[in-house]
Formats: sequence, structure tokens, C-alpha cells
Amino acid sequence: MMFKKEFPMSFCSQCGHEVNLQLPEGDAIYRYVCSHCEMIHYQNPNIITGSIPIWEDKVLLCKRAIEPQKGYMTLPAGFMENYETVQEGAQRETWEEARAKLEDLSLFGVFNLPHISQVYMFFTGYVIDGICSPGPESLETQWFTKDEIPWQELAFPVITEALKLFFDEHNNKIHIGDIYREEDNTVIVNRFTS
Amino acid sequence: MMFKKEFPMSFCSQCGHEVNLQLPEGDAIYRYVCSHCEMIHYQNPNIITGSIPIWEDKVLLCKRAIEPQKGYMTLPAGFMENYETVQEGAQRETWEEARAKLEDLSLFGVFNLPHISQVYMFFTGYVIDGICSPGPESLETQWFTKDEIPWQELAFPVITEALKLFFDEHNNKIHIGDIYREEDNTVIVNRFTS
Repeated sequence: MMFKKEFPMSFCSQCGHEVNLQLPEGDAIYRYVCSHCEMIHYQNPNIITGSIPIWEDKVLLCKRAIEPQKGYMTLPAGFMENYETVQEGAQRETWEEARAKLEDLSLFGVFNLPHISQVYMFFTGYVIDGICSPGPESLETQWFTKDEIPWQELAFPVITEALKLFFDEHNNKIHIGDIYREEDNTVIVNRFTS
Repeated sequence: MMFKKEFPMSFCSQCGHEVNLQLPEGDAIYRYVCSHCEMIHYQNPNIITGSIPIWEDKVLLCKRAIEPQKGYMTLPAGFMENYETVQEGAQRETWEEARAKLEDLSLFGVFNLPHISQVYMFFTGYVIDGICSPGPESLETQWFTKDEIPWQELAFPVITEALKLFFDEHNNKIHIGDIYREEDNTVIVNRFTS
């Protein structure tokens, strides 16, 4: 595996001295290592946890108030925080972005975005009383039936993929897939179903 | 959510100046923020990706050659690396720890360990030709039928939980659960099944 420089680091977060890229003994990946205290700074993927919020025959989407893709539609999702579970993170993000409370969460899909070292995890969940309103990161919240989904206005390929799978094969399957964006911006989707 | 100090940071990795714990505007969690360049340093959970390696009616376990829990038995698993998928990470760890090659991977379970901000993801997979041998982090590799599993010698509660679920209900279900270790060392397991 190549080391790419998307996550640059110049100084040791423990002692403040300069770090250098080195291959630690027994390791196969270059890491930032402190020139002074020799601490190895590992960098690892992040989890994006989110939901497909359901009420009656509709799904809730949010219009993004922030970049990237401001003005485009998305499912509630965001970086999982320390000391929470993935389910708690999905509920928290759904509250923050759509002021909706979820119950009966069920794992729906896991999507790898290896080019940006992210793993998306989506849970279906039922919105209590169908109540929602835009949180600070959203301009609008809106309910859509399958035929109303604004496919051309979705913010990210992973949102399109999750909604396609949800409406095409909404059943007990759990989906796992890889979504790559190549250098020419082509999006590659590999689907697997567990 | 409380901020706990398990992941201490003293200096900015970008400019080398001191960081302080602050609540950024619009945020609900204290973050390390640089006193000089004002960079916010987010800290997020890690994914541990691993496998339940299968051959005939047996599962492969490794005896750990390293701390923690040196000498105890484990499933192959380790920190997911940047630029790989969770499946690739499970295959890599299985090769590194047990010199076994996996095919037909299928998502088996997702286990939250929120007290240490880790999310385990296990895949079942079939070991090609049943070939295995200890990698540098293992003392031994050994095949076990259900009746032979050394339940008292397993390294971590999440390994016990994954093997229990595998042998109790080995079917098409995917499991999700939360595993907490309380301050008095009690292990709490909450099971959900998707």
C-alpha cells in the first residue's frame, strides 16, 4: 500500500518536535515518527455514521447548509465521536441535522470509501411521530416517497447508492459495498450483499 | 458527552505550538485547539477489522505472541489502515496473524466498544485449502470445532461474543452489539440482531 500525503503532519503532538515519515520495524506502512521522543503517530480511517429516517412510505432528506455540496440533498450522517456507539452516533446526527428522533434502528449498510479513508454505516430508523425540522447544518428537511426522490440533487455518491438499495431491495438484507472516486472523477461502485 | 483524557495531546501537529482543550463555536464536545494556528484537532473512534476463518466444521484461532493478553487465544483482527476497505483489512490481518488466505467474505457482526472508542467488524471467510501458520504476532495457529473452543483462554470479551454468536446462531443473521467494560471490570454485553 502506498502512503499518500492527504493527512500531513509536521510536529509531534506529544513533545512538539519534528516528525519524519519512516517505516517502523516490522511495519509495512510508512508512519510519522517523532525525531525526539520516537512516538509513532498512526493514522486510521474514520467512521461516518448516519440514518435512513423513515415515516409512513417516505424517507427524510436534508438540504445541506454547509460546504461541501451546499444546497444539495443528503441523508443525516457525520463523523462518529469517541465514547459513543455507531447507533448513538446515527441518532445524534439525525437530531443535529433534522431535529428528528429515531427508534427501532437496524443496520442497513456499510460502504467503504477507501480513496478518502472513510467507512459509512447507515441505519434505518423510524422517526417518532414524523416530527422534523432543519438543524443548524441544514437549510430544509423534507419527506420523499420513492417516486419523489430528487436523484439529480443528491450530495454524494454514497447517498445515491444507499437510497437506490433502500428502494430497490428494501428487505432484510444488509448491504456492503465499495465506492471509489477515480482521478478523472469517475465513481466506481462495487456491491456485495451479506 | 464528557471529554475523557485517554487520548492526550500537548502540541499542534501542524505548527508545533501548544494546544488547549476548548469548545469550538457550534460544537458540543471539547477539542484540542492550537493556541497559534487555531487548528481544531478532532479525535474519532477506530475500526478493528477481523475475521472468523472457517474450514470444514472448524474455526481458526491464534495464540497471541504480544501484549495485551499474550498467550491467550484470539481471532485475527487489527486496526484498519487508511486506503483499504474493511474486507481488505480483514484479509490482511488474517494473513499477517495466521498466514491464511480468505475467500467468500461475508459481514458477520459489528461490535461497539465505546469505553475505548473502538468498533469491531468481523467477517466470516473460508480459508483456502485450510492452510495456515503463525505470523509474527502469533505463537500458534490452531483449528477448533464448536466443542473444542477454549472458552476460558480467549483474549477479549469481543472474541467470546463473536464466537458465541457464530456457534449458537450460525445463519444469515448479522449481529450488532455493544460491549462495555465498567470501572469495576464488569463486562456488559447488549445484543441486537439486524
